[in-house]
Amino acid sequence: MNSLIPSHGGDIYNYDKNLIDFSSNINPLGYPKELDEIIKSSFEDLLKYPDVEYRELRAKIAKYLDTDIEYIEVGNGSVEIIDMVISFFSRVFIFEPSFSEYRLRAEVHGLDIVSIDLDKSFEFTLDKLEGLREGDLIIITNPSNPTGKTLTKEILKEIYLRVVDLNAYLLLDEAFFEFSDLDYDSVELFKKLAYSNVGIVRAMTKFFGLPGIRLGYGVFEKDIIEKFSKKRLPWSVNSFAVNSSDILFNKDYIDKSFKYVKEAREILFNNLKSIKGISPVESNANFLLLKIDGASEDYIFRELLDRDILVRRCSNYKNLDGTYIRVAVKTRELNEILYKALREIMEG
Amino acid sequence: MNSLIPSHGGDIYNYDKNLIDFSSNINPLGYPKELDEIIKSSFEDLLKYPDVEYRELRAKIAKYLDTDIEYIEVGNGSVEIIDMVISFFSRVFIFEPSFSEYRLRAEVHGLDIVSIDLDKSFEFTLDKLEGLREGDLIIITNPSNPTGKTLTKEILKEIYLRVVDLNAYLLLDEAFFEFSDLDYDSVELFKKLAYSNVGIVRAMTKFFGLPGIRLGYGVFEKDIIEKFSKKRLPWSVNSFAVNSSDILFNKDYIDKSFKYVKEAREILFNNLKSIKGISPVESNANFLLLKIDGASEDYIFRELLDRDILVRRCSNYKNLDGTYIRVAVKTRELNEILYKALREIMEG
Repeated sequence: MNSLIPSHGGDIYNYDKNLIDFSSNINPLGYPKELDEIIKSSFEDLLKYPDVEYRELRAKIAKYLDTDIEYIEVGNGSVEIIDMVISFFSRVFIFEPSFSEYRLRAEVHGLDIVSIDLDKSFEFTLDKLEGLREGDLIIITNPSNPTGKTLTKEILKEIYLRVVDLNAYLLLDEAFFEFSDLDYDSVELFKKLAYSNVGIVRAMTKFFGLPGIRLGYGVFEKDIIEKFSKKRLPWSVNSFAVNSSDILFNKDYIDKSFKYVKEAREILFNNLKSIKGISPVESNANFLLLKIDGASEDYIFRELLDRDILVRRCSNYKNLDGTYIRVAVKTRELNEILYKALREIMEG
Repeated sequence: MNSLIPSHGGDIYNYDKNLIDFSSNINPLGYPKELDEIIKSSFEDLLKYPDVEYRELRAKIAKYLDTDIEYIEVGNGSVEIIDMVISFFSRVFIFEPSFSEYRLRAEVHGLDIVSIDLDKSFEFTLDKLEGLREGDLIIITNPSNPTGKTLTKEILKEIYLRVVDLNAYLLLDEAFFEFSDLDYDSVELFKKLAYSNVGIVRAMTKFFGLPGIRLGYGVFEKDIIEKFSKKRLPWSVNSFAVNSSDILFNKDYIDKSFKYVKEAREILFNNLKSIKGISPVESNANFLLLKIDGASEDYIFRELLDRDILVRRCSNYKNLDGTYIRVAVKTRELNEILYKALREIMEG
């Protein structure tokens, strides 16, 4: 892994010029505009501590997810919840490539890390669970970041049966859930099982375009919620994030964003696929992983940077060599700029 | 300790009527009003991840504190920073009564807790450090919560010399610093020693009237900053909190708040002292601890609640029996309401 490459996208602060940021994966339509009014009318709440139990916020999230409030945990971004889950275990399975924080947080908490490389198709297969034991944690990102792959309902059920059979624990990181066109909803799927041995985290960050507001949430069985209650820091979610939860119910925005990104992704996918030396991975999220032939990620990165475009190099993901970059799906106009730039770089 | 009493003030969410909240200790003048404009003009930042290194924010805090950026850590409220510091040690000295989170976080991280009761004057004395060993952490709140007591410069130096001599570590929680009229500033005092063996945490929460925005910060030696960098969660401070830091430079607001609270505290202190059965503790912060004779905290609490006033019962503080309540210093008008209510309750 290349330690000079930032662990996360969105590192626009290292450059002293304005860049088109294709390195972080945020809804290209931005957040729902009603949020401005919500915030302008909630200044008074800054003067009070947020409810340390976040009762109203959790009730709203439960309603949005169509599940019960007793299963809901909230956090300062989903990463805070993921961190707590990891801290409850002593061994974790991570499937590479994946979000770098899983490994970092596991190291902080001293877990044994079982690092499993996915095949070059990046599809999850059941043989990857070989060696799984009672009490292990496995983390699967669905849709996956950085590949955009999703689990089929059948394979998710198979994974879950294996996990339950061994009394292990499955954490599904679904930060990009709303962008995907899955034929199932894991929150619904596991509800009748009271989320036994499975937790699901989602966030406002990606789909609702709000990385700055810091609101993550998750659905967990009651035993895990009880463990959170002993571990969590008080007031971890700020007042504005609490109030922003009303935008979860803007169905028009949700439908419009989903459709927009899906169409924009298809156009960008086909355009990029037509470029010599670029093979985009089929994605069910708002980004594309691009396999590059005939040029290094650093070369592409620098050429794009010369054109004021920032993308995510991927060689600091495990199981990705220096021949991948990840690009966000942005507005059609911006995607067109990326496409033309890459075509120029690759085909001259 | 009474587990039915909430661990923190400000628990207004448990009551279904509007209360005058004397239980949480927030600047009675509220936050500086320019913040509204700062926030209204920073919506765009929600669309970006905050700088994961918080370079601009840390520079501003360093400027406000008149120290160097390399010593500055920021967090999702000071409690997040305190939690990390605690996690670095295996034994902690806590001086009771004190903020309940020290104990809770020490329990989460499995530390041995040495719990030392202060004398009834609540003044810190050096004999309380007996038994301190190399590698121990001691946490002192300065001004103290819930007593409002501050360390003299002389005793702080003595404590520090003992700590350095033993190679222990002193954490000063100065959440209420700006309310006090100390003749020293610990950030300045320890600067030339590069904060060796001492850390200082402060926050926007209390003095700047912003418990909802979640911004804490601290000053630490470089070795500790390095440890934070391996431990901290990414993006723990939200965009609005980042932008709010400009209000740190509103000297008029700072001077005005300090004077207002000091005068209001003196009036409230003298008024409450005149009530039969109430003995307020001399305080250097924006709250008063009241010793009650001839009535239980529960009785006072309920009588005040009947009058729509919420105060902090104190029997879930260690080393405070059921004969103390804590009240915030609020506006003179509200303080007058509290005074009259307490007089009525105690003197009929």
